[in-house]
Amino acid sequence: MPNERERRQKRSRLPSRREAAEKIKAPIPDAQVSGDENSAACAAADLVVLTIPFEGHAALLKQIKPVIRPDAIVVDATVPLAASVGGRATRTLGIWQGSAAQETAEILPKVAVVAAFQNIAADLLNGDGPVECDVIVCSDDANAAQSVRMLAARIPGVRAIDGGKLENARILEQITALLIGLNIRHKGHSGIRITGLPDQAYNS
Amino acid sequence: MPNERERRQKRSRLPSRREAAEKIKAPIPDAQVSGDENSAACAAADLVVLTIPFEGHAALLKQIKPVIRPDAIVVDATVPLAASVGGRATRTLGIWQGSAAQETAEILPKVAVVAAFQNIAADLLNGDGPVECDVIVCSDDANAAQSVRMLAARIPGVRAIDGGKLENARILEQITALLIGLNIRHKGHSGIRITGLPDQAYNS
Repeated sequence: MPNERERRQKRSRLPSRREAAEKIKAPIPDAQVSGDENSAACAAADLVVLTIPFEGHAALLKQIKPVIRPDAIVVDATVPLAASVGGRATRTLGIWQGSAAQETAEILPKVAVVAAFQNIAADLLNGDGPVECDVIVCSDDANAAQSVRMLAARIPGVRAIDGGKLENARILEQITALLIGLNIRHKGHSGIRITGLPDQAYNS
Repeated sequence: MPNERERRQKRSRLPSRREAAEKIKAPIPDAQVSGDENSAACAAADLVVLTIPFEGHAALLKQIKPVIRPDAIVVDATVPLAASVGGRATRTLGIWQGSAAQETAEILPKVAVVAAFQNIAADLLNGDGPVECDVIVCSDDANAAQSVRMLAARIPGVRAIDGGKLENARILEQITALLIGLNIRHKGHSGIRITGLPDQAYNS
């Protein structure tokens, strides 16, 4: 049961979420966008994308667990940066399950968890520049992974690649820390491209 | 002191190393290539590149430690694949020091250790196809790192990038396991390109 402080926080966040939705809709009037409180949003969604700081990861999952639909796909883009506990954004924490995405699969054992989108700079996804980044998609659920690859491939500049089992998410999460280090050192918005695979490995 | 079995092994390996050197020289007659036993080769070298399976990593370092020149640069391309201990080549071992390259720095505290070249497929470096791979170079010795970046940038198709401190080698080593998984799944010779950095971040 949420206590009074949590209820107050939820009420105060709701208008800003609705404002954020309006901001997204402004340049794309046809877009279906709405802002809502996490539990309500998850209860209504068949695809949930987690793009949260790692310090809120486990708590959020426990919050949405009772309401998330059993046939939902949960896409986890969370990276356990050491910055979550006062360390550096160029380093990661060791996660007992192997990765943040595998922690998600442990907390939500009934849903299909897909790891993806860790390596795209949020600034670029928000339209600040061209996206030049492959999205490697890892999951133990082949159908869910394919749905997410199809979704990712619709982002201009993105190629989606099957990265195998969810356990490989640990490497995708590490790569983000490397890219953050490159961004700091070289002042850029770095991403990765995978070279040397046959054409059918991309966007299929 | 090497025992009789080790002495026999050394003698038996030496001709094949000299044959390998001749094989490399065949298409590039001007190349200076020679094959030699590890300790002798290291004693004569100002730059040593380790491209060995991880199971032989610590033992080799201890073997060459007494003879390696204190002003030498040691470039470590070793990846601690779980295959080294009977596991999968798509998984890595946890290394106490953080990475194979950091283990090298611990065993050889007096030399400059540089982590690089983990992510280029050996087949491509051997001339089996075009190299399309950025080489991220990590070291705590800025001068040694720059020398290795200059060397890497001379390989056609390679762009060398400063990846910061040696501790980041752990991420480069993980990436190799991911690429091996992609090669198995998609039948390719995968590599990585880093996008989104300013021009001066490459080959400088």
